[in-house]
Amino acid sequence: MPRFALLIEYDGGPFSGWQAQADQPSVQQAVETALGRLDPGFAAGARIGAAGRTDAGVHATGQVAHADLERDWDPFRLSEALNYHLKPAPVAVLAVARVADDFHARFSAIERRYRFRLVARRAPLTHDRGLVWRVRNPLDADAMREGAAHLVGKHDFTTFRSSICQAQSPVKTLDRIEIEEREIPHGREYLFRLRARSFLHNQVRSIVGTLERVGAGSWQPRQVAEALAARDRAACGPVCPPHGLYLAGVGYPVDPFAP
Amino acid sequence: MPRFALLIEYDGGPFSGWQAQADQPSVQQAVETALGRLDPGFAAGARIGAAGRTDAGVHATGQVAHADLERDWDPFRLSEALNYHLKPAPVAVLAVARVADDFHARFSAIERRYRFRLVARRAPLTHDRGLVWRVRNPLDADAMREGAAHLVGKHDFTTFRSSICQAQSPVKTLDRIEIEEREIPHGREYLFRLRARSFLHNQVRSIVGTLERVGAGSWQPRQVAEALAARDRAACGPVCPPHGLYLAGVGYPVDPFAP
Repeated sequence: MPRFALLIEYDGGPFSGWQAQADQPSVQQAVETALGRLDPGFAAGARIGAAGRTDAGVHATGQVAHADLERDWDPFRLSEALNYHLKPAPVAVLAVARVADDFHARFSAIERRYRFRLVARRAPLTHDRGLVWRVRNPLDADAMREGAAHLVGKHDFTTFRSSICQAQSPVKTLDRIEIEEREIPHGREYLFRLRARSFLHNQVRSIVGTLERVGAGSWQPRQVAEALAARDRAACGPVCPPHGLYLAGVGYPVDPFAP
Repeated sequence: MPRFALLIEYDGGPFSGWQAQADQPSVQQAVETALGRLDPGFAAGARIGAAGRTDAGVHATGQVAHADLERDWDPFRLSEALNYHLKPAPVAVLAVARVADDFHARFSAIERRYRFRLVARRAPLTHDRGLVWRVRNPLDADAMREGAAHLVGKHDFTTFRSSICQAQSPVKTLDRIEIEEREIPHGREYLFRLRARSFLHNQVRSIVGTLERVGAGSWQPRQVAEALAARDRAACGPVCPPHGLYLAGVGYPVDPFAP
């Protein structure tokens, strides 16, 4: 059966997360239902695998999943048909590619890229509601960068992972954290970009929530290093809300969607 | 009674427009209800006036209204109190200013600025749904600019106004149309910026809808000049949907919100 990779964007707001769960709306279920309109295997209950199992409320602009279909679809026609059947769910298939049978969206991935949008402004949000985390007061971006620098590299991230994280090891290599600050009308936006081979459960939200405390002046930048060294979940700052977080991209040895 | 100017942002999606109507949710009603929690006059039915009466689905990032209150509020505290009482409506008061009694949000205005967001991409929208007008195919921005140039200046805009427009004269001076094109992931965005002392009903949507036809190649740029010269509503291109349109700002001889 031909295998296809799907590049998927979604608004995580209405979903209980990527992963299919009984009686809860999930992005995985939405995509599988659309596939079921096109393919007998999915109509009979076949499943797809994804690179990142995003939590409830977390968005994606570059999730990747793979699916084995019975028919050798033209990739463009398959993406068009899937988008047709996905309506009205806020899920869009950005691209489809035919891939080798040994391509696995999760296990073949060598990099995950996340973005987090944090806005500081006094007034509540209107157009960006559910798409960014809002705080009321401006943050010190340089202090956040100084705190973030302590986290880059190979570390035991026990402090920055959920107590229900199922990864075998808390040791991960964080390749990059960049924090871009820009003025927006009546406020400031802080865009966090994080890159690693893989992340622990809640790692990005634990890091951003802690760095926000640094930006607000409640924590000194060096306390981030102390929290990391503690290897203790209790040493973490508050975990920030999910709705500013985006799975922005997944890297593979060869980009399946390269033109 | 002290008069206040309010700078207001809103997502027009859930509203039947700015203007209060019986049995229909309006932005005006939402703001007046919040004022009614703070001021006896508004609790008894006082009204506010706004610079632009946006249609159903049209957004604002810089609407201006004025209100006469019984108490001489501190402007910052008034904006905080209004935002508290506006929740959970997607309406935010960005700033409040104490203004002279002869300030009138509509009649004192000397300029209106509108923006229109148009995105060309194949896949349906997820995060920007309801906030931009999507078309499937890329547009020719230079052709749209060439067509738009015919509209700048003082003209009889009969072709580009709604048949129910109540303005006494169809003659308006369009000071500027700028079209900015930028690449976005998996598509292109075209941002239209229009500026005039005042606009006719549906003028911006009639202009953008016509220019989109130019960008798509269905119209030649010179046909925009011909449509204008016809002074005939039937010569207009299709009126585009409201949800890409934003009232972005209102100009006054002295900016009431200047720090």
